[in-house]
Amino acid sequence: MRGAVLYGKDDVRLEEIPEPGIVESTDAIVRIAATCVCGSDLWHYRGINPPPKKPSPFGHEYCGVVEAVGADVTTIKPGDFVIGSFFASDGTCPNCRNGFQTFCLHMEPLVGCQAEVVRVPWADGTLVATPEIPSAELIPSLLAASDVLGTGWFAADSAQVAPGMTVAVVGDGAVGLCGVIAAAQLGADRIIAMSRHSARQQLAREFGATDIVEERGDDGVARIKDMTDGIGADAVLECVGTEQSMRQAIASGRPGALVGIVGVPHDVAITGTTLFRSGVGVRGGPAPVRRFLPHLIELIFDGKINPGKVFDLTLPLDDVADAYAAMDQRRATKVLLQP
Amino acid sequence: MRGAVLYGKDDVRLEEIPEPGIVESTDAIVRIAATCVCGSDLWHYRGINPPPKKPSPFGHEYCGVVEAVGADVTTIKPGDFVIGSFFASDGTCPNCRNGFQTFCLHMEPLVGCQAEVVRVPWADGTLVATPEIPSAELIPSLLAASDVLGTGWFAADSAQVAPGMTVAVVGDGAVGLCGVIAAAQLGADRIIAMSRHSARQQLAREFGATDIVEERGDDGVARIKDMTDGIGADAVLECVGTEQSMRQAIASGRPGALVGIVGVPHDVAITGTTLFRSGVGVRGGPAPVRRFLPHLIELIFDGKINPGKVFDLTLPLDDVADAYAAMDQRRATKVLLQP
Repeated sequence: MRGAVLYGKDDVRLEEIPEPGIVESTDAIVRIAATCVCGSDLWHYRGINPPPKKPSPFGHEYCGVVEAVGADVTTIKPGDFVIGSFFASDGTCPNCRNGFQTFCLHMEPLVGCQAEVVRVPWADGTLVATPEIPSAELIPSLLAASDVLGTGWFAADSAQVAPGMTVAVVGDGAVGLCGVIAAAQLGADRIIAMSRHSARQQLAREFGATDIVEERGDDGVARIKDMTDGIGADAVLECVGTEQSMRQAIASGRPGALVGIVGVPHDVAITGTTLFRSGVGVRGGPAPVRRFLPHLIELIFDGKINPGKVFDLTLPLDDVADAYAAMDQRRATKVLLQP
Repeated sequence: MRGAVLYGKDDVRLEEIPEPGIVESTDAIVRIAATCVCGSDLWHYRGINPPPKKPSPFGHEYCGVVEAVGADVTTIKPGDFVIGSFFASDGTCPNCRNGFQTFCLHMEPLVGCQAEVVRVPWADGTLVATPEIPSAELIPSLLAASDVLGTGWFAADSAQVAPGMTVAVVGDGAVGLCGVIAAAQLGADRIIAMSRHSARQQLAREFGATDIVEERGDDGVARIKDMTDGIGADAVLECVGTEQSMRQAIASGRPGALVGIVGVPHDVAITGTTLFRSGVGVRGGPAPVRRFLPHLIELIFDGKINPGKVFDLTLPLDDVADAYAAMDQRRATKVLLQP
């Protein structure tokens, strides 16, 4: 089959690679309907994260149709349309039962989804089947649920967004935009998207943002304070992962607010004094998308949300190298790939 | 009147100083029934915090009887027995309305409580009167409510301790011990006190701790993981404020847990990666004791809690220098001073 392989900086290639089969009795084999490139893939592509020791299959966002399941799989069957996420989780360990499947004690990272077929370990604990085979129009939104929507949702969940709140969203990438969707669904009264790109501002408004702040750093914080009686937002979603964005996020919260962090942090340090003096908390991590998938699928099938709009470029899987380049050069927010 | 004055490292003196009077129409004048030395006072006494520019009145924990109020004070009257805390707050600003009175937009630090009389700004927003004049036995507990109990309570509140949880408490000083009280009152099933001092262990058990862990650092964390299905505690109270205690606290939480931080941090840095990879959040700050005071006073008058037991030494105010030395040398957990 065809699949994307990361060789190193600026070097992703589509190659002929072996098609995976069932290995464990808890596995499923899924034929990919759609996959995409993640912002976190770019850290590797840009050479900021260390390169792989050997050329590696890549990609961790997917939805598709089950082709085969192992003997011990009970909730998923061949022919089901399923969505999973970037880690496989057994669904039964204490962390899974607490809804933190990304910390499953038997967790396995999922890789090689930018391909025609993927092997999914722990199928029962990892995959969620849709109520019926989705129409083509729903596929981008279901694919978004696999990572960016689930991750934006976790930012809002970690920050404990609740009805009536004022929420600030730092980051206007696909995750930040999905954070806006989550905040709106969770009942926020006012959603302030921090963005200086007009197309992303427009999508943020479509997703439920009530205000846009273009300023960054201290100026951005000052604008948010102006809008919130001088105290800051009730909840903040940090969807970038840099020192600057983290500092801006903490400074944008009111005392008692939580900042939900879902951008993988790179060289970010927070002093105890910053947290103590601000009274703002920070919580997040790799999003347990699996917890939210049943609800997200329902919202998508009911037409209540349309996160698939974050994909502003669709390419055939064969053009995977172009997909990475387009996101790297910010020509696209998020690229959908069709195998 | 007599009052404690901090001159510098290891140098606190009782001196004759001017008795305060009403300055603003929102002030109250309180004759101190009991005061004490705070763990945070020791940072100054030990010379770790910079010394005062000039000799300064000291102390911020107090309860006592109102002698006079300004013309605009409506909820407090002369003769009331009142409790306040380390900051004065107007009670009406957005942060006060959110229950974060320590971030009052018109906040004033309260100092000079280790004295016979203190002036309390913003009396309506700062002081809470007891339902009746308390008996002598209740005074230590009411004094504890002024800071250490309210602070331990805020640690539990910040960590969102809820019924059925397993809670780890890092720090066996007066605040940590009061954190145990808070966790018990908030319905924790299991409360693990980290302590290696037998007298403090005994008091922790009396206050509701179900388990004691003597190990520190990685060994302490390993013990807590052993006790929690390998995942960590549901909530953690960090009542020290050092790098080591913070690291231990974060490592002791399960993914999704919050660490409530109430120890003033000294040279503590947390990397974004630590928070992200652990899935543990950190939140706290200077405790808005005022929010909790009405409930704490009720619990004390109802005999449901007895936080006054954290005072293991009582001295006359005249011996204030001995009080600091006793706490500095760990001969006492917490010293009560009688003017």
